[in-house]
Amino acid sequence: MGESLLNKIQITPLRRISTQGGDVLKVLMKEEDSFKNFGEAYFSEVYAKAVKAWKLHRRMTLNLVVPVGMVRFVFCEERNGVMEFRTIEIGSENYARITVSPGIWFGFKGIAKGVSLVLNIADIMHDPDEVERRTVETITYNW
Amino acid sequence: MGESLLNKIQITPLRRISTQGGDVLKVLMKEEDSFKNFGEAYFSEVYAKAVKAWKLHRRMTLNLVVPVGMVRFVFCEERNGVMEFRTIEIGSENYARITVSPGIWFGFKGIAKGVSLVLNIADIMHDPDEVERRTVETITYNW
Repeated sequence: MGESLLNKIQITPLRRISTQGGDVLKVLMKEEDSFKNFGEAYFSEVYAKAVKAWKLHRRMTLNLVVPVGMVRFVFCEERNGVMEFRTIEIGSENYARITVSPGIWFGFKGIAKGVSLVLNIADIMHDPDEVERRTVETITYNW
Repeated sequence: MGESLLNKIQITPLRRISTQGGDVLKVLMKEEDSFKNFGEAYFSEVYAKAVKAWKLHRRMTLNLVVPVGMVRFVFCEERNGVMEFRTIEIGSENYARITVSPGIWFGFKGIAKGVSLVLNIADIMHDPDEVERRTVETITYNW
């Protein structure tokens, strides 16, 4: 059967260092296991209660952090004809990094009151040809 | 005399792409001139009216973006015994990237109402031995 891709998703707690004038939040260092390569970094804003789903990257490894707000990420994989889900919530109440290998369907929802902010440090540059998309209704999930 | 380091600071306007559920904000791609190497990424929060100054990196090249709030960056260099300054404000009202070579004293101030957020994508990992610090009073500037 092979191992579930969902089990390979890495969650790394990150340090928030208290400094005068505002905290410093660690994100990613080149010597960490989560780091493969630098291709591109970009932010995705997500409004309160808004859902952005579904997307699958064929080649990109994602490193996701949420420095502002809270975001629910939902990852899914079809195994033996059954859709399996894994839900991970990160942000100000749980400051951590999620590392996602290629080949996993995912979506996310803003679960803070205001706008939440997602940073992705990807190992390749944006390439529309390596992204698959499905509408939110295509995969049934109780957001 | 050599060229002023302040003149070499690069400002690159960045795209904010309107998407349902929240915008996508470009940060940095490996093929851009501003990118030298990936060493580490980290956030610095800066409270409204707070000043974080002064710091000089001996080896680090910084790539700075402000996805939330507005931040005034002040860069300075002593030339012919005179302190020269360059002030650049980036953030939600001017979404752009600042690329800073090593050897420049700088500080920054939160000039939005709430907390502002700075992302630095640095070409080397954090190393306390390559950072010089001076207290805010050491270099006279009208913040």
